[in-house]
Amino acid sequence: MAIDVDSLVERAAAGDARAVARLLSLVEDASPQAAEVAAALMPHTGRAQVVGITGSPGVGKSTITSAIVAAFRARGQRVGVLAIDPSSPFSGGALLGDRIRMQEHATDPDVFIRSMASRGHLGGLAWATPQALRVLDAAGCDVVLVETVGVGQSEIEVVAVADSVIVLLAPGMGDGIQAAKAGILEIGDLFVVNKADRDGAESTAREIRHMVGLGQRVDGGWQPPVLLTVASRSEGVDGVVEALDRHREWAVGSGAWLTRRHQRAADEIEAIALTRVRQRFERASGDNGLDGLADAVASGTLDPFAAADRLLGESRP
Amino acid sequence: MAIDVDSLVERAAAGDARAVARLLSLVEDASPQAAEVAAALMPHTGRAQVVGITGSPGVGKSTITSAIVAAFRARGQRVGVLAIDPSSPFSGGALLGDRIRMQEHATDPDVFIRSMASRGHLGGLAWATPQALRVLDAAGCDVVLVETVGVGQSEIEVVAVADSVIVLLAPGMGDGIQAAKAGILEIGDLFVVNKADRDGAESTAREIRHMVGLGQRVDGGWQPPVLLTVASRSEGVDGVVEALDRHREWAVGSGAWLTRRHQRAADEIEAIALTRVRQRFERASGDNGLDGLADAVASGTLDPFAAADRLLGESRP
Repeated sequence: MAIDVDSLVERAAAGDARAVARLLSLVEDASPQAAEVAAALMPHTGRAQVVGITGSPGVGKSTITSAIVAAFRARGQRVGVLAIDPSSPFSGGALLGDRIRMQEHATDPDVFIRSMASRGHLGGLAWATPQALRVLDAAGCDVVLVETVGVGQSEIEVVAVADSVIVLLAPGMGDGIQAAKAGILEIGDLFVVNKADRDGAESTAREIRHMVGLGQRVDGGWQPPVLLTVASRSEGVDGVVEALDRHREWAVGSGAWLTRRHQRAADEIEAIALTRVRQRFERASGDNGLDGLADAVASGTLDPFAAADRLLGESRP
Repeated sequence: MAIDVDSLVERAAAGDARAVARLLSLVEDASPQAAEVAAALMPHTGRAQVVGITGSPGVGKSTITSAIVAAFRARGQRVGVLAIDPSSPFSGGALLGDRIRMQEHATDPDVFIRSMASRGHLGGLAWATPQALRVLDAAGCDVVLVETVGVGQSEIEVVAVADSVIVLLAPGMGDGIQAAKAGILEIGDLFVVNKADRDGAESTAREIRHMVGLGQRVDGGWQPPVLLTVASRSEGVDGVVEALDRHREWAVGSGAWLTRRHQRAADEIEAIALTRVRQRFERASGDNGLDGLADAVASGTLDPFAAADRLLGESRP
């Protein structure tokens, strides 16, 4: 049965949670309707502030995400949450605990929460995330929080093009160094030292201020604040939301907002185009298909560049 | 001046460190000679055992890598190390400390150590890593250790196709859960609980044995061992090296070795082909170039799928 995309989009735009969930499933799985969905969503999009939240495991990302949702809800705003979760055959039961922190919002009709596997998508996160963002934007969310579980390169790339990026840290983890290692220092528009009731919070904040001060930022003019929170008690979370407001205001005024959205669109277009190309690769078969070529390279009879040229020749549109 | 690739390859195959370094630079940067280098290296490759080492930050990956190098050197084998490092404008000074642990091997002519940025390569890790592996293989390394700093998706994908994969953990970090979150449990051929002189090492090992026992492994027949080490004192490291020998023997006999190498070749070919496509995208300009299309999508006048189709049309070979 053909899905009536236009009707789904109309219902989603009116805030119908089931229609939102259905559209999210359609776009995440790179279904044949994905393009149709994206086109139908376009007129309803462009309004939501996209906020990326990243940081090492254990710093409290789920907890602060839930607290930030509560703060936006207290202002009467509609909020979407896209939690980029790992998908592992082992993860089922063990990880549910994290999402339980979001349960307080589960029955709120103005909060949409979606967990998205960080792999298994043909086009990867770079494909799936902007599609899902567009659905939540069209559903009337004022803010969409994109929370990553890990700080891997693909997660960072997706978060880096959010309108505002929160880098979350915790005291006593050598966290400044770890953040530098993960390459997340330079993508932060604001830095939050969570679990600030623990020893070392102030020194972690100082360390981050120092490292941020050293960096050459692309967005000249915005000095990323370093804030302290105890997210489990909602302490300091209003300050985070205010800093997000200030960053949005600055970004819109300075042009950084448009620059970031341009980059986000470019990344998305490229991800879709590369996915199309990979689909062609998958359809190529025989000696010049990926399987046959891999045999030749693995056995040493063909070099990988020559193999790539043959694959491209075989999989022309 | 044209580089004499054949002469460089001959010198590298004889173990000349400067020639090895030069070739690594050529292939990492996707230089115009990269294809020529790969073709010239082919006859010298296929022999090295590629060992991936991954795990969360702080578990001691650099330390155990250095200790494993020492153990292979004690057997008279030549060793390569490819440390996949983040590249961040902030990382320069702060991260040098880690690499200092490798200093004991810095003057050993039978140890080749290379740090490789985890981004900044046009084709990404999936492109750069196999190229660099091929250079170290051709340089006569019996073993090449690929150590990742992070546990991001792209790092995991690269490590997962090593001949043998070590997943490193440490007690008291809720590490079983974190490993499951990062999706690295199912890629481990052996698990090593490092810092085993700390409290909780045995219980971490038990937790991992339990989780590994639950998993459906693709490589039926190999039960991944869970070992304990104190890498800083080299305790237990000989056991790791013996387990690597056993895994190699099993993998060659069972066919898993060939399967892994086939997958590695397929990943590499695809990465090279996709890089070629991205180079075409970069050359496309005007309204149907990536920049012009991103403007249209960001301003809401074009949907991203239509934009991707135009980009593909514009950048045909």
